[in-house]
Amino acid sequence: MFDAVKLLKVRGAPAIGIFAAYAMYVLSEKSEKNENSLREIGEYLKSSRPTAVNLKWAVDRMLNSDNLREEAFAIHKEDIDMCKSIAENGLSLIKDGGCVLTHCNAGALATSQYGTGLGSLILGRERGMKLSAYVDETRPLLQGARITALELMNAGVDVTLICDNMAGEVMKSGKIDAVFTGCDRVAANGDVANKIGTCSLAVLAKYYGVPFYVFCPSSTIDLRCKTGSDIVIEEREPGEITDLYFSEPIAPKGVKCYNPAFDVTPRELITGIITERGLLKTHPPTQTHLPQNLM
Amino acid sequence: MFDAVKLLKVRGAPAIGIFAAYAMYVLSEKSEKNENSLREIGEYLKSSRPTAVNLKWAVDRMLNSDNLREEAFAIHKEDIDMCKSIAENGLSLIKDGGCVLTHCNAGALATSQYGTGLGSLILGRERGMKLSAYVDETRPLLQGARITALELMNAGVDVTLICDNMAGEVMKSGKIDAVFTGCDRVAANGDVANKIGTCSLAVLAKYYGVPFYVFCPSSTIDLRCKTGSDIVIEEREPGEITDLYFSEPIAPKGVKCYNPAFDVTPRELITGIITERGLLKTHPPTQTHLPQNLM
Repeated sequence: MFDAVKLLKVRGAPAIGIFAAYAMYVLSEKSEKNENSLREIGEYLKSSRPTAVNLKWAVDRMLNSDNLREEAFAIHKEDIDMCKSIAENGLSLIKDGGCVLTHCNAGALATSQYGTGLGSLILGRERGMKLSAYVDETRPLLQGARITALELMNAGVDVTLICDNMAGEVMKSGKIDAVFTGCDRVAANGDVANKIGTCSLAVLAKYYGVPFYVFCPSSTIDLRCKTGSDIVIEEREPGEITDLYFSEPIAPKGVKCYNPAFDVTPRELITGIITERGLLKTHPPTQTHLPQNLM
Repeated sequence: MFDAVKLLKVRGAPAIGIFAAYAMYVLSEKSEKNENSLREIGEYLKSSRPTAVNLKWAVDRMLNSDNLREEAFAIHKEDIDMCKSIAENGLSLIKDGGCVLTHCNAGALATSQYGTGLGSLILGRERGMKLSAYVDETRPLLQGARITALELMNAGVDVTLICDNMAGEVMKSGKIDAVFTGCDRVAANGDVANKIGTCSLAVLAKYYGVPFYVFCPSSTIDLRCKTGSDIVIEEREPGEITDLYFSEPIAPKGVKCYNPAFDVTPRELITGIITERGLLKTHPPTQTHLPQNLM
């Protein structure tokens, strides 16, 4: 179970939380029935993905529960309700015929149902809205190309896949109404940790005057983490870059790599954070550098 | 020869120019010796890569020459001299121990020798300077990972390979002294067409206060092209995104893609353009959004 989280077989902050809850329940049935061993298991599971606050949150909640089976099912059920509420709260941000740019994957396969960043698009489609999306492939592990594109195509969204370095060009074309992303952790001041490349998208969105929205359950907000500079950025294996996901090497043998899994987007680049409770804060974009013919 | 340019077997504006010159010479030997057929060949070659101004420039120069063999060798020799001059002119922009971020490939394999964007690093190494570079892999065709990383490692530069969406994070860390890129075409007003993702790097560089330099032979400056909006952006096959360079599909079957080969960086984001004649213009970065602990 540690490996499943570490190797991203299970990924997405809410899905990791639900998975950790069920893991704790199953392991509590199999291990000695004493609190110390369960606590050790919990600490070990937490260390599999240090940036994911939902993991810590779910493990701690399980450790404080008397009925682990009920607690795990409750965490799962609450996530489904939460995703639906997040999707509802984000729906007002897009119009019929609208076009959104997304990064990484914040859909049902990262949560329980609907997802976070993609939930509003999927709910909008269920209600008959015509929607389109530009999907960043999201190197190195290509979650956008492999998962988001599929989930949105299945939902009937008009999907266009792009490489990460094309997002700015698409924003410049004036086609994007808003950027929607999920996130792995929100600091108390509103700084957001999410998949590497998110902060660059936010800088580009600000430059081109495109609203930038982050979607997450409120459990992702870590009030003990004051600002983004308190968030430890996980650094991953160079092989993810040099050997792609399941392919031959694409880089010189022995080349050094830097492979941060996340970055931190400062609050001033974020237009709003959408949780199950509503829109948390707003910094409307004030300037635009769109080409003059599009202004 | 058309296919070699079209399919990027020969790539990099100066290399394409040299290749076109030799191609015109060889074909003139093999085809009927009349000006019309050579002119047709030239027009056909030009259409293989519409954005590359060096291609048009070299073909036109060959068409106006009486001795095609001498002219082709002259174009080649001039490029070697030019690259060396560009490298010299750029050397003052980096210090011993400096660190540069690069995109795509602007090395010897894109030109004749030294290259344009990489020339100063290679010349600096020849003179004993200690230099390091962060190399964007440059999706979809991975010229950075496959070519730039190799060329710079061979030159003794301390290379770190990153995915394109990590460049902003590296700039934010304060490690980058300057961004060096080549370019495919410069408009009369200083707007620059280069590999897709270049403009986004320039936006990020401006945001983080990192100088952004473009390197090219002066033949890349197209005075008949008034601004960047006059540059036609070549759109390439979706398979480059969905099937990687030589691998299995990495995206859902039938997914629509947008695959622009270039983007246009507006002059106001460019600190300077370095040609064999010197530094052409300067917009020093005036603001920085580096984290406070790095300022």
